[in-house]
Amino acid sequence: MHVLDYDGYLLDLDGTVYRGNEVIPEAVIFVNWLIKEQKKFLFVTNNSSKTPEQAVDRLNSMSIPAKREHIFTSALMVAHHVQQMTDRPKSAYIIGSTGLKVALEEVGLIEQDVDPDVVIVGIDRTFTYDKLEKASLAIQKGAKFIATNGDKMIPTERGFVPGNGSIIAAIEVASGKEALVMGKPNPMFIKQAAEIISTPHQKTIMIGDNYDTDISAGIAAGVDTLHVDTGVTRNTVVKKKAIQPTFSIRTFKDIM
Amino acid sequence: MHVLDYDGYLLDLDGTVYRGNEVIPEAVIFVNWLIKEQKKFLFVTNNSSKTPEQAVDRLNSMSIPAKREHIFTSALMVAHHVQQMTDRPKSAYIIGSTGLKVALEEVGLIEQDVDPDVVIVGIDRTFTYDKLEKASLAIQKGAKFIATNGDKMIPTERGFVPGNGSIIAAIEVASGKEALVMGKPNPMFIKQAAEIISTPHQKTIMIGDNYDTDISAGIAAGVDTLHVDTGVTRNTVVKKKAIQPTFSIRTFKDIM
Repeated sequence: MHVLDYDGYLLDLDGTVYRGNEVIPEAVIFVNWLIKEQKKFLFVTNNSSKTPEQAVDRLNSMSIPAKREHIFTSALMVAHHVQQMTDRPKSAYIIGSTGLKVALEEVGLIEQDVDPDVVIVGIDRTFTYDKLEKASLAIQKGAKFIATNGDKMIPTERGFVPGNGSIIAAIEVASGKEALVMGKPNPMFIKQAAEIISTPHQKTIMIGDNYDTDISAGIAAGVDTLHVDTGVTRNTVVKKKAIQPTFSIRTFKDIM
Repeated sequence: MHVLDYDGYLLDLDGTVYRGNEVIPEAVIFVNWLIKEQKKFLFVTNNSSKTPEQAVDRLNSMSIPAKREHIFTSALMVAHHVQQMTDRPKSAYIIGSTGLKVALEEVGLIEQDVDPDVVIVGIDRTFTYDKLEKASLAIQKGAKFIATNGDKMIPTERGFVPGNGSIIAAIEVASGKEALVMGKPNPMFIKQAAEIISTPHQKTIMIGDNYDTDISAGIAAGVDTLHVDTGVTRNTVVKKKAIQPTFSIRTFKDIM
């Protein structure tokens, strides 16, 4: 199938559509083409810190007329997963930012730091030892342990700063339990994204710059994949992987 | 050799001499016997948060007339190691408590949070994301990465709270580098302790409650070991280990 012939497009954001505060112009052209062609598409991001509204505002400021319905964050995925749990939790101790807190509030979870049913962890730049202690005590007492995403580092102008994977590691060591990580490369995230846009798997493609999250998740979910060489995993590195993405491009210019 | 016939005694503190704020009476009797017999002894503790003076005050309050010269903490071990490094660091970014900061100041290290020569990490109950970021950026830029001890959890009245191993894990994930951990089970710590009391290895014994730190370090350092069943590793668990301690007792009452 030609890369422009799919029904549904799942797109990563950071490294694919923009790099930090810098927009990738070819991506803007591609997304606007998707809109013009009335393709179904969804931005699928591991970043749990922003609400969908904040993500939309950012995209709009970059000349991408995305709407609320086009955003699927790892925070929304966790909220969805919580609703599906057989023993559905009522209370949560939450380490995270606005995006995560709002998503969990919307599915009715009550925040509490002592004896919660579940501990949910997303990137939190106000993380402290006190939060680490509360989380690990709760998990040792039997609370479930769920994380939005396991990204180890986040690229910024200051260099690579600690990602949520770093916070998870601290809690895992202190609690002796492993987190259930919902973001990419967990294929559940991609399967749920495909369900939201309701396109069949064989007509859905996952597009991203990071082999170990975007491409791996797409492959594991059974959809086709497109690697774009504008972010974390360079094309030379992708070429050495045992399982190749369906397509590899330098930028979206190659397919437009 | 009989357990009372050694020349030098290296003793763990928490779980061996006291449990949190509660003294172990049999240990008090044993240490006072060591003093009466003019045996050489040294308390060898992974706890880097207290200064030797603070540790002495605590022991004195428990009827153990220990002196400054009887205390060897993982903070002092790191300070000693820093002095021995071939490319001796001048500046350090320090995550830790008073015990560590004082020990490093005493060997002339200058604290600085940007571009330090070394990042040194001990338990810090005021640990934050900001400190995690500073440490991992410095290590990525080439700073050495040294930790006092790798204890995963600390037993308290509230349950097991996060130990320094948990903080180390976060920094290791965010920096992509592994820490050099100086505390037990690193045998260097025990070898240095034996050198301080200057007793020959074959006449020195390491005593502690924790198989994975105290006993393992003693075995790796080539000294005899005594496991006392008053703390972390229960005797039933010790019995299943491939390498047994030289002696195993329930409490010091068994040998007094």
